[in-house]
Amino acid sequence: MRQFVIIGHDAPTTPDFSLDDLAGAAGRLDVLCRCVSAAVFLSHDIREDVRVHLVLGDEYTVTVDSETVRRLNPDERSTAALIRTALEEREEAIGHIPVETSPGISLTRRGFEGTLEDVATAGTVVQLHADGDPAVDATPPTGPVFVLSDHRDFTDEEQDLLDDAADQRLSLGPQPLHANHAITVAHNFLDTDGYRSDE
Amino acid sequence: MRQFVIIGHDAPTTPDFSLDDLAGAAGRLDVLCRCVSAAVFLSHDIREDVRVHLVLGDEYTVTVDSETVRRLNPDERSTAALIRTALEEREEAIGHIPVETSPGISLTRRGFEGTLEDVATAGTVVQLHADGDPAVDATPPTGPVFVLSDHRDFTDEEQDLLDDAADQRLSLGPQPLHANHAITVAHNFLDTDGYRSDE
Repeated sequence: MRQFVIIGHDAPTTPDFSLDDLAGAAGRLDVLCRCVSAAVFLSHDIREDVRVHLVLGDEYTVTVDSETVRRLNPDERSTAALIRTALEEREEAIGHIPVETSPGISLTRRGFEGTLEDVATAGTVVQLHADGDPAVDATPPTGPVFVLSDHRDFTDEEQDLLDDAADQRLSLGPQPLHANHAITVAHNFLDTDGYRSDE
Repeated sequence: MRQFVIIGHDAPTTPDFSLDDLAGAAGRLDVLCRCVSAAVFLSHDIREDVRVHLVLGDEYTVTVDSETVRRLNPDERSTAALIRTALEEREEAIGHIPVETSPGISLTRRGFEGTLEDVATAGTVVQLHADGDPAVDATPPTGPVFVLSDHRDFTDEEQDLLDDAADQRLSLGPQPLHANHAITVAHNFLDTDGYRSDE
Protein backbone atom coordinates (compact mmCIF):
# COMPACT_ATOMS: atom_id res chain seq x y z
CA MET A 1 0.00 0.00 0.00
CA ARG A 2 1.07 3.57 -0.72
CA GLN A 3 -0.05 6.21 1.75
CA PHE A 4 0.08 9.98 1.77
CA VAL A 5 -0.49 12.22 4.78
CA ILE A 6 -1.04 15.90 4.06
CA ILE A 7 -1.31 18.48 6.81
CA GLY A 8 -3.85 21.21 6.10
CA HIS A 9 -2.83 23.89 8.55
CA ASP A 10 -5.62 26.32 7.73
CA ALA A 11 -8.13 23.73 6.53
CA PRO A 12 -11.68 23.94 7.83
CA THR A 13 -12.82 21.79 10.74
CA THR A 14 -16.51 22.53 10.24
CA PRO A 15 -18.62 22.27 7.08
CA ASP A 16 -19.39 25.99 7.11
CA PHE A 17 -17.39 26.92 4.05
CA SER A 18 -18.29 27.83 0.51
CA LEU A 19 -17.24 25.73 -2.46
CA ASP A 20 -16.80 29.03 -4.32
CA ASP A 21 -13.81 30.15 -2.27
CA LEU A 22 -11.68 27.06 -1.62
CA ALA A 23 -8.40 28.97 -2.02
CA GLY A 24 -9.57 31.75 0.28
CA ALA A 25 -12.05 31.43 3.11
CA ALA A 26 -11.86 27.61 3.01
CA GLY A 27 -8.22 27.75 4.13
CA ARG A 28 -6.57 26.52 0.95
CA LEU A 29 -8.69 23.41 0.78
CA ASP A 30 -7.91 23.54 -2.97
CA VAL A 31 -4.41 22.25 -2.17
CA LEU A 32 -5.75 19.25 -0.28
CA CYS A 33 -8.25 18.47 -3.05
CA ARG A 34 -5.48 18.42 -5.63
CA CYS A 35 -3.51 16.13 -3.34
CA VAL A 36 -6.38 13.63 -3.25
CA SER A 37 -6.61 13.72 -7.02
CA ALA A 38 -2.86 13.24 -7.45
CA ALA A 39 -2.85 10.34 -5.00
CA VAL A 40 -5.83 8.42 -6.32
CA PHE A 41 -6.30 8.94 -10.06
CA LEU A 42 -4.80 7.44 -13.15
CA SER A 43 -6.03 8.34 -16.60
CA HIS A 44 -9.53 6.84 -16.82
CA ASP A 45 -8.78 4.73 -13.77
CA ILE A 46 -8.22 4.75 -10.04
CA ARG A 47 -4.99 3.49 -8.47
CA GLU A 48 -5.06 0.31 -6.47
CA ASP A 49 -4.22 0.24 -2.81
CA VAL A 50 -3.66 3.90 -2.03
CA ARG A 51 -4.78 5.77 1.06
CA VAL A 52 -4.60 9.51 1.44
CA HIS A 53 -5.06 11.18 4.81
CA LEU A 54 -5.92 14.87 5.05
CA VAL A 55 -5.22 16.33 8.47
CA LEU A 56 -7.65 19.20 8.95
CA GLY A 57 -6.53 21.86 11.42
CA ASP A 58 -4.85 19.18 13.59
CA GLU A 59 -8.30 18.16 14.78
CA TYR A 60 -9.82 15.79 12.22
CA THR A 61 -8.40 13.47 9.60
CA VAL A 62 -10.28 12.60 6.42
CA THR A 63 -9.07 9.39 4.79
CA VAL A 64 -9.75 8.41 1.18
CA ASP A 65 -9.27 4.74 0.32
CA SER A 66 -8.73 4.20 -3.40
CA GLU A 67 -10.03 0.63 -3.22
CA THR A 68 -13.49 1.56 -2.02
CA VAL A 69 -13.98 5.22 -2.89
CA ARG A 70 -16.97 6.14 -5.03
CA ARG A 71 -18.34 9.43 -6.41
CA LEU A 72 -14.85 10.96 -6.45
CA ASN A 73 -13.91 13.15 -9.42
CA PRO A 74 -10.60 14.86 -10.19
CA ASP A 75 -11.79 18.46 -9.87
CA GLU A 76 -11.29 20.50 -6.73
CA ARG A 77 -14.88 21.52 -6.20
CA SER A 78 -16.45 18.06 -6.12
CA THR A 79 -13.67 16.72 -3.91
CA ALA A 80 -14.19 19.61 -1.52
CA ALA A 81 -17.90 18.75 -1.44
CA LEU A 82 -17.05 15.24 -0.24
CA ILE A 83 -14.79 16.68 2.47
CA ARG A 84 -17.61 19.00 3.52
CA THR A 85 -19.95 16.02 3.73
CA ALA A 86 -17.39 14.27 5.92
CA LEU A 87 -17.24 17.26 8.26
CA GLU A 88 -21.02 17.32 8.51
CA GLU A 89 -20.72 14.06 10.44
CA ARG A 90 -17.97 15.23 12.76
CA GLU A 91 -20.17 14.76 15.82
CA GLU A 92 -20.20 11.03 15.05
CA ALA A 93 -16.41 10.77 15.10
CA ILE A 94 -15.56 9.75 18.63
CA GLY A 95 -12.02 8.92 19.66
CA HIS A 96 -9.99 7.20 16.98
CA ILE A 97 -12.85 5.18 15.51
CA PRO A 98 -13.39 6.23 11.89
CA VAL A 99 -16.83 7.11 10.57
CA GLU A 100 -17.46 6.35 6.90
CA THR A 101 -19.08 9.51 5.59
CA SER A 102 -19.40 8.45 1.94
CA PRO A 103 -18.19 5.26 0.22
CA GLY A 104 -14.43 5.00 0.71
CA ILE A 105 -14.14 8.25 2.67
CA SER A 106 -13.91 8.28 6.44
CA LEU A 107 -13.45 10.81 9.18
CA THR A 108 -11.50 10.37 12.40
CA ARG A 109 -11.16 12.78 15.29
CA ARG A 110 -7.42 12.97 15.48
CA GLY A 111 -4.70 15.32 14.40
CA PHE A 112 -1.30 14.82 12.86
CA GLU A 113 0.31 12.94 15.74
CA GLY A 114 -2.41 10.29 16.00
CA THR A 115 -2.60 9.84 12.24
CA LEU A 116 1.16 9.58 11.89
CA GLU A 117 1.40 7.03 14.71
CA ASP A 118 -1.22 4.90 13.03
CA VAL A 119 0.30 4.89 9.53
CA ALA A 120 3.86 4.56 10.85
CA THR A 121 3.08 1.15 12.35
CA ALA A 122 2.01 -0.20 8.97
CA GLY A 123 4.57 1.29 6.61
CA THR A 124 7.86 2.97 5.90
CA VAL A 125 7.64 6.67 6.66
CA VAL A 126 9.42 8.70 3.98
CA GLN A 127 10.45 12.24 4.71
CA LEU A 128 10.75 14.40 1.62
CA HIS A 129 13.63 16.77 2.15
CA ALA A 130 15.96 18.87 0.02
CA ASP A 131 18.92 17.18 1.71
CA GLY A 132 17.54 13.65 1.31
CA ASP A 133 18.91 10.96 -0.99
CA PRO A 134 17.92 11.65 -4.60
CA ALA A 135 14.92 9.47 -5.39
CA VAL A 136 16.34 8.86 -8.88
CA ASP A 137 19.06 6.76 -7.19
CA ALA A 138 17.05 5.24 -4.39
CA THR A 139 15.34 1.88 -3.99
CA PRO A 140 11.63 2.37 -3.37
CA PRO A 141 10.58 1.38 0.12
CA THR A 142 7.96 -1.20 0.92
CA GLY A 143 4.64 0.25 2.09
CA PRO A 144 5.76 3.85 1.70
CA VAL A 145 4.09 6.63 3.66
CA PHE A 146 4.84 10.11 2.35
CA VAL A 147 4.19 13.01 4.69
CA LEU A 148 3.61 16.44 3.19
CA SER A 149 2.47 19.88 4.18
CA ASP A 150 0.06 22.22 2.41
CA HIS A 151 1.13 25.74 1.40
CA ARG A 152 2.72 26.28 4.81
CA ASP A 153 5.91 24.76 6.19
CA PHE A 154 5.74 22.11 8.87
CA THR A 155 5.62 23.63 12.35
CA ASP A 156 8.57 22.82 14.63
CA GLU A 157 6.40 20.35 16.52
CA GLU A 158 5.30 18.60 13.33
CA GLN A 159 8.88 18.53 12.11
CA ASP A 160 10.02 16.89 15.34
CA LEU A 161 7.30 14.24 15.10
CA LEU A 162 8.23 13.54 11.49
CA ASP A 163 11.95 13.41 12.24
CA ASP A 164 11.23 10.79 14.90
CA ALA A 165 8.93 8.71 12.70
CA ALA A 166 10.90 8.87 9.44
CA ASP A 167 12.53 5.67 8.22
CA GLN A 168 13.95 7.19 5.04
CA ARG A 169 14.77 10.67 3.75
CA LEU A 170 14.38 11.33 0.05
CA SER A 171 14.67 14.27 -2.30
CA LEU A 172 12.44 14.18 -5.35
CA GLY A 173 14.60 16.68 -7.23
CA PRO A 174 16.31 20.03 -7.02
CA GLN A 175 13.12 22.09 -7.26
CA PRO A 176 10.72 22.70 -4.34
CA LEU A 177 7.32 21.32 -5.34
CA HIS A 178 3.73 21.88 -4.31
CA ALA A 179 2.42 19.01 -2.20
CA ASN A 180 0.19 17.66 -4.98
CA HIS A 181 3.03 17.76 -7.50
CA ALA A 182 5.27 15.94 -5.01
CA ILE A 183 2.63 13.21 -4.73
CA THR A 184 2.59 12.80 -8.51
CA VAL A 185 6.38 12.57 -8.63
CA ALA A 186 6.46 10.15 -5.69
CA HIS A 187 3.99 7.87 -7.47
CA ASN A 188 6.12 8.03 -10.61
CA PHE A 189 9.23 7.19 -8.58
CA LEU A 190 7.46 4.05 -7.35
CA ASP A 191 5.83 3.27 -10.71
CA THR A 192 9.08 3.39 -12.67
CA ASP A 193 11.09 1.14 -10.38
CA GLY A 194 12.61 -1.35 -12.81
CA TYR A 195 11.00 0.46 -15.75
CA ARG A 196 13.88 0.69 -18.20
CA SER A 197 14.38 0.17 -21.89
CA ASP A 198 15.13 -3.37 -23.03
CA GLU A 199 18.48 -2.41 -24.45
CA MET B 1 12.36 27.02 -22.79
CA ARG B 2 9.92 24.26 -21.84
CA GLN B 3 6.57 24.31 -23.57
CA PHE B 4 3.37 22.37 -23.09
CA VAL B 5 0.46 22.20 -25.52
CA ILE B 6 -2.79 20.77 -24.17
CA ILE B 7 -5.80 20.15 -26.37
CA GLY B 8 -9.12 20.91 -24.70
CA HIS B 9 -11.57 19.07 -26.91
CA ASP B 10 -14.70 20.19 -25.11
CA ALA B 11 -13.31 23.44 -23.73
CA PRO B 12 -15.39 26.58 -24.09
CA THR B 13 -14.73 29.04 -26.94
CA THR B 14 -16.89 31.78 -25.47
CA PRO B 15 -16.85 33.29 -21.96
CA ASP B 16 -20.42 32.14 -21.29
CA PHE B 17 -19.60 29.54 -18.69
CA SER B 18 -19.95 29.36 -14.94
CA LEU B 19 -16.95 29.03 -12.66
CA ASP B 20 -19.16 26.79 -10.49
CA ASP B 21 -19.27 23.94 -13.01
CA LEU B 22 -15.81 23.71 -14.58
CA ALA B 23 -15.90 19.91 -14.72
CA GLY B 24 -19.37 19.88 -16.26
CA ALA B 25 -20.88 22.59 -18.42
CA ALA B 26 -17.47 24.27 -18.91
CA GLY B 27 -16.24 21.22 -20.84
CA ARG B 28 -13.66 19.94 -18.37
CA LEU B 29 -11.92 23.26 -18.12
CA ASP B 30 -10.80 21.98 -14.70
CA VAL B 31 -8.31 19.71 -16.49
CA LEU B 32 -6.75 22.60 -18.40
CA CYS B 33 -6.54 24.74 -15.27
CA ARG B 34 -4.64 22.00 -13.44
CA CYS B 35 -2.32 21.75 -16.45
CA VAL B 36 -1.48 25.45 -16.19
CA SER B 37 -0.76 25.07 -12.50
CA ALA B 38 1.45 22.00 -13.06
CA ALA B 39 3.36 23.74 -15.83
CA VAL B 40 3.99 27.05 -14.11
CA PHE B 41 4.23 26.67 -10.34
CA LEU B 42 6.94 25.68 -7.94
CA SER B 43 6.44 25.81 -4.21
CA HIS B 44 6.23 29.53 -3.38
CA ASP B 45 7.65 30.33 -6.78
CA ILE B 46 7.00 30.37 -10.51
CA ARG B 47 9.15 28.42 -12.94
CA GLU B 48 11.38 30.31 -15.31
CA ASP B 49 10.94 30.16 -19.05
CA VAL B 50 7.83 27.99 -19.40
CA ARG B 51 4.99 28.50 -21.84
CA VAL B 52 1.76 26.56 -21.71
CA HIS B 53 -0.69 26.65 -24.60
CA LEU B 54 -4.32 25.63 -24.10
CA VAL B 55 -6.09 24.81 -27.34
CA LEU B 56 -9.77 25.58 -26.82
CA GLY B 57 -12.15 23.67 -29.09
CA ASP B 58 -9.60 23.83 -31.94
CA GLU B 59 -10.55 27.47 -32.40
CA TYR B 60 -8.56 29.57 -29.94
CA THR B 61 -5.31 29.10 -28.08
CA VAL B 62 -4.64 30.69 -24.69
CA THR B 63 -0.93 30.97 -23.87
CA VAL B 64 0.47 31.51 -20.39
CA ASP B 65 4.05 32.76 -20.20
CA SER B 66 5.65 32.03 -16.83
CA GLU B 67 8.10 34.91 -17.21
CA THR B 68 5.48 37.62 -17.40
CA VAL B 69 2.31 36.13 -15.92
CA ARG B 70 0.68 37.96 -13.02
CA ARG B 71 -2.44 37.35 -10.91
CA LEU B 72 -2.20 33.59 -11.49
CA ASN B 73 -2.95 31.31 -8.55
CA PRO B 74 -2.76 27.51 -8.36
CA ASP B 75 -6.47 26.83 -7.85
CA GLU B 76 -8.75 25.84 -10.70
CA ARG B 77 -11.37 28.54 -10.23
CA SER B 78 -9.10 31.56 -10.40
CA THR B 79 -7.23 30.13 -13.38
CA ALA B 80 -10.53 29.52 -15.14
CA ALA B 81 -11.47 33.15 -14.46
CA LEU B 82 -8.34 34.30 -16.32
CA ILE B 83 -9.23 32.02 -19.25
CA ARG B 84 -12.73 33.48 -19.25
CA THR B 85 -11.25 36.98 -19.31
CA ALA B 86 -9.12 35.94 -22.29
CA LEU B 87 -12.20 34.68 -24.14
CA GLU B 88 -14.00 37.95 -23.48
CA GLU B 89 -11.51 39.54 -25.87
CA ARG B 90 -11.85 36.94 -28.58
CA GLU B 91 -13.16 39.49 -31.06
CA GLU B 92 -9.77 41.21 -30.84
CA ALA B 93 -7.86 38.08 -31.84
CA ILE B 94 -7.46 38.32 -35.58
CA GLY B 95 -5.39 35.83 -37.51
CA HIS B 96 -2.35 34.55 -35.67
CA ILE B 97 -1.55 37.80 -33.88
CA PRO B 98 -1.84 37.25 -30.11
CA VAL B 99 -3.82 39.60 -27.90
CA GLU B 100 -2.57 39.99 -24.34
CA THR B 101 -5.71 39.66 -22.24
CA SER B 102 -4.06 39.94 -18.82
CA PRO B 103 -0.37 40.20 -17.90
CA GLY B 104 1.43 37.16 -19.31
CA ILE B 105 -1.72 35.60 -20.80
CA SER B 106 -2.53 35.92 -24.47
CA LEU B 107 -5.18 34.68 -26.86
CA THR B 108 -4.69 33.67 -30.49
CA ARG B 109 -7.30 32.63 -32.98
CA ARG B 110 -5.85 29.34 -34.05
CA GLY B 111 -6.40 25.68 -33.33
CA PHE B 112 -4.08 22.77 -32.73
CA GLU B 113 -2.42 22.72 -36.14
CA GLY B 114 -1.43 26.38 -36.13
CA THR B 115 -0.22 26.24 -32.53
CA LEU B 116 1.76 23.07 -33.13
CA GLU B 117 3.40 24.50 -36.25
CA ASP B 118 4.45 27.55 -34.31
CA VAL B 119 5.98 25.75 -31.32
CA ALA B 120 7.54 23.02 -33.49
CA THR B 121 9.77 25.56 -35.24
CA ALA B 122 11.26 26.68 -31.93
CA GLY B 123 11.69 23.41 -30.07
CA THR B 124 11.88 19.64 -29.91
CA VAL B 125 8.42 18.16 -30.05
CA VAL B 126 8.09 15.24 -27.62
CA GLN B 127 5.31 12.75 -28.07
CA LEU B 128 4.34 10.99 -24.87
CA HIS B 129 3.46 7.44 -25.72
CA ALA B 130 3.19 4.10 -23.93
CA ASP B 131 5.58 2.61 -26.50
CA GLY B 132 8.09 5.47 -26.30
CA ASP B 133 11.56 5.26 -24.80
CA PRO B 134 11.40 5.26 -20.99
CA ALA B 135 12.13 8.80 -19.82
CA VAL B 136 14.13 7.36 -16.91
CA ASP B 137 16.75 6.27 -19.48
CA ALA B 138 16.49 9.17 -21.90
CA THR B 139 18.53 12.31 -22.36
CA PRO B 140 16.30 15.38 -22.00
CA PRO B 141 15.84 17.25 -25.24
CA THR B 142 16.73 20.89 -25.75
CA GLY B 143 13.72 23.19 -25.87
CA PRO B 144 11.20 20.42 -25.25
CA VAL B 145 7.59 20.80 -26.33
CA PHE B 146 5.24 18.27 -24.76
CA VAL B 147 1.88 17.76 -26.43
CA LEU B 148 -0.98 16.37 -24.37
CA SER B 149 -4.69 15.83 -24.56
CA ASP B 150 -7.35 16.53 -21.95
CA HIS B 151 -9.67 13.76 -20.73
CA ARG B 152 -10.24 12.61 -24.34
CA ASP B 153 -7.84 10.77 -26.62
CA PHE B 154 -6.27 12.60 -29.53
CA THR B 155 -8.47 12.46 -32.64
CA ASP B 156 -7.02 10.65 -35.66
CA GLU B 157 -6.29 13.99 -37.29
CA GLU B 158 -4.52 15.34 -34.22
CA GLN B 159 -2.57 12.10 -33.90
CA ASP B 160 -1.41 12.38 -37.53
CA LEU B 161 -0.28 15.98 -37.01
CA LEU B 162 1.59 15.00 -33.87
CA ASP B 163 3.20 11.96 -35.52
CA ASP B 164 4.49 14.23 -38.25
CA ALA B 165 5.79 16.91 -35.90
CA ALA B 166 7.31 14.67 -33.21
CA ASP B 167 11.10 14.62 -32.89
CA GLN B 168 11.17 12.22 -29.94
CA ARG B 169 8.85 9.66 -28.39
CA LEU B 170 8.97 9.12 -24.65
CA SER B 171 7.14 7.11 -22.05
CA LEU B 172 6.95 8.64 -18.59
CA GLY B 173 6.20 5.32 -16.94
CA PRO B 174 4.03 2.23 -17.07
CA GLN B 175 0.89 3.95 -15.80
CA PRO B 176 -1.41 6.13 -17.94
CA LEU B 177 -1.48 9.60 -16.36
CA HIS B 178 -3.83 12.57 -16.41
CA ALA B 179 -2.42 15.39 -18.53
CA ASN B 180 -1.61 17.58 -15.52
CA HIS B 181 0.17 14.72 -13.77
CA ALA B 182 2.15 14.02 -16.94
CA ILE B 183 3.27 17.67 -16.99
CA THR B 184 4.51 17.36 -13.40
CA VAL B 185 6.42 14.18 -14.22
CA ALA B 186 7.85 15.71 -17.42
CA HIS B 187 9.13 18.70 -15.43
CA ASN B 188 10.69 16.33 -12.90
CA PHE B 189 12.32 14.34 -15.72
CA LEU B 190 13.94 17.57 -16.93
CA ASP B 191 14.68 18.87 -13.41
CA THR B 192 16.52 15.73 -12.30
CA ASP B 193 18.80 15.42 -15.31
CA GLY B 194 22.20 15.00 -13.71
CA TYR B 195 20.63 15.09 -10.23
CA ARG B 196 22.32 12.16 -8.53
CA SER B 197 23.85 11.43 -5.18
CA ASP B 198 27.52 12.30 -4.74
CA GLU B 199 28.46 8.71 -4.06
